[in-house]
Amino acid sequence: MQPTRVAILGTGLIGSSVGLALKAARPSVQIAGYDASGDHLRRAQSVKAIDRRASLRDALADADLVVISTPVGAMKALFEEIGPLLPVDALVVDTGSTKAQVLRWASDLLPNGVRFIGGHPMAGKTEVGPDAADAKLFQGAVWCLVPLATAPRDAIDDAVRLVESFGAAPYFLDADEHDGLVASVSHLPYLMSVALIGHLGRERSWRETASLAAGGFAYTTHLTDSDPQMFADIARTNRDNLVRRLDLYVDELLALRDAIAGDAADLKERFEAARLLHADWLAGRAQGQTSEGDNPLPTTRSMLTGSLFGRFGRDR
Amino acid sequence: MQPTRVAILGTGLIGSSVGLALKAARPSVQIAGYDASGDHLRRAQSVKAIDRRASLRDALADADLVVISTPVGAMKALFEEIGPLLPVDALVVDTGSTKAQVLRWASDLLPNGVRFIGGHPMAGKTEVGPDAADAKLFQGAVWCLVPLATAPRDAIDDAVRLVESFGAAPYFLDADEHDGLVASVSHLPYLMSVALIGHLGRERSWRETASLAAGGFAYTTHLTDSDPQMFADIARTNRDNLVRRLDLYVDELLALRDAIAGDAADLKERFEAARLLHADWLAGRAQGQTSEGDNPLPTTRSMLTGSLFGRFGRDR
Repeated sequence: MQPTRVAILGTGLIGSSVGLALKAARPSVQIAGYDASGDHLRRAQSVKAIDRRASLRDALADADLVVISTPVGAMKALFEEIGPLLPVDALVVDTGSTKAQVLRWASDLLPNGVRFIGGHPMAGKTEVGPDAADAKLFQGAVWCLVPLATAPRDAIDDAVRLVESFGAAPYFLDADEHDGLVASVSHLPYLMSVALIGHLGRERSWRETASLAAGGFAYTTHLTDSDPQMFADIARTNRDNLVRRLDLYVDELLALRDAIAGDAADLKERFEAARLLHADWLAGRAQGQTSEGDNPLPTTRSMLTGSLFGRFGRDR
Repeated sequence: MQPTRVAILGTGLIGSSVGLALKAARPSVQIAGYDASGDHLRRAQSVKAIDRRASLRDALADADLVVISTPVGAMKALFEEIGPLLPVDALVVDTGSTKAQVLRWASDLLPNGVRFIGGHPMAGKTEVGPDAADAKLFQGAVWCLVPLATAPRDAIDDAVRLVESFGAAPYFLDADEHDGLVASVSHLPYLMSVALIGHLGRERSWRETASLAAGGFAYTTHLTDSDPQMFADIARTNRDNLVRRLDLYVDELLALRDAIAGDAADLKERFEAARLLHADWLAGRAQGQTSEGDNPLPTTRSMLTGSLFGRFGRDR
């Protein structure tokens, strides 16, 4: 399946990047965009991620591919609204951060027989909105695919070809497995960052603390620059995994605390083990992708001075 | 004071960067290097961070500036050894990661009247060794200065001029204050990273976890690539601050856990508050320094594919 008429519902960073990637793969594709924010929609059009702004009804009419890229929290109401409007043969995919709840909504609210394949590209930036969109955002990235139990085989094949056309690697897993894994690799790191700057920022010494903070602090707080609404939705739709993962992480921190408090003889070995795990992970990542296949995320240089140039300012 | 004959004891990343910065400020300076590792010493010479390799006795003879850049754990024995060898008028500075213990050793083991000013440049990379040395490493960085109580005024003035000649900003504080603050901005972020990859790496699902991990995981685990020996020394010489800081951080994580478990209505506001703290911190950083004043740390691009090129490999 080569999509020719596409509806993108939600034209933020991911939806607009999908639009640009579709155009790059097939310039003749016609893309209609819909977004609750008129500003997002206009900017998506101005960066040529969509060809035209449309109502939901108009966007969906005759679409052979429907991409749902709103925050997860907006999807239930959207599924209710689009259910009666979906062309029967369209491939319907989403890009939401959590999958179990989204798949339940799809099963309950979309028409029987819908060709729905849940998805989640493991790529992104902390910058939000269509202006940060990038046709190459997904190149070399893993794209999780979570088919609805009733999805026909050809819908799965179409979804694979679609994400491969973006340069991404399809990775099938079930919704609960997905949500458990992203709690570990994405949601916990975000919460770690929030808790770090959150508790320091409330202390009387914050001004002095901030004066001394440098590169290491920049790395471990960078994720706080993500979209708060997206992570509030994630917390609500992946609550049990997050609570369990935070408990496991706290157990590990307390074990490390006790080792330090007790002057454990093996501290260097513990630290060395973490360094090797990290090096192995990087080596595996590097093997899995080409040199142009990674995400052009900001450097520490730009993290530390970016607000001079407005890139990380509060005016977004 | 313009140093003319310098001894650098410990020619790793920081010691060798000091050598390059001294040469850049005053090309005629003569630098003798000493390191317990003959390999470090040869590489420091080959990158021209030192002019010659020397014994301790030879390095210290006639030196007007002595820079001690070994890991903190090696300093006690080194102080004992250099005590009888220090020229009486030399300015003696260190660059160790913690200060209270170092100042006690300096007070106990160095000769009365020694012109010792403790220091700690808030700059670095996870890469270690002389090959990563950079004459501009300290430009725009805060350089903590912690004078020994008995240090004369002119020694303090000399230390200020020295770090200013590297483009760094002197920042005076007492040793206990320093150690408390760096526990927050540097040591806790490292331990957070170690605990993240450490507890995930022991789980049966680690292979799947690693497959999905992307940019956000790269940021929050990057610090694990630091020198394990350096952080083992830090844990031993800053134990009480680390234990207290870990307890405070765990309290914050558990409060966040409870808010998520209880579907707190203000999750988005909590996340937004962290985002604003981070943006304010970046804005303050940016104000305080010039565009060439930040540290050229690796990009996420290089973090994710760097091991292809050996930069982050285990062969360091």
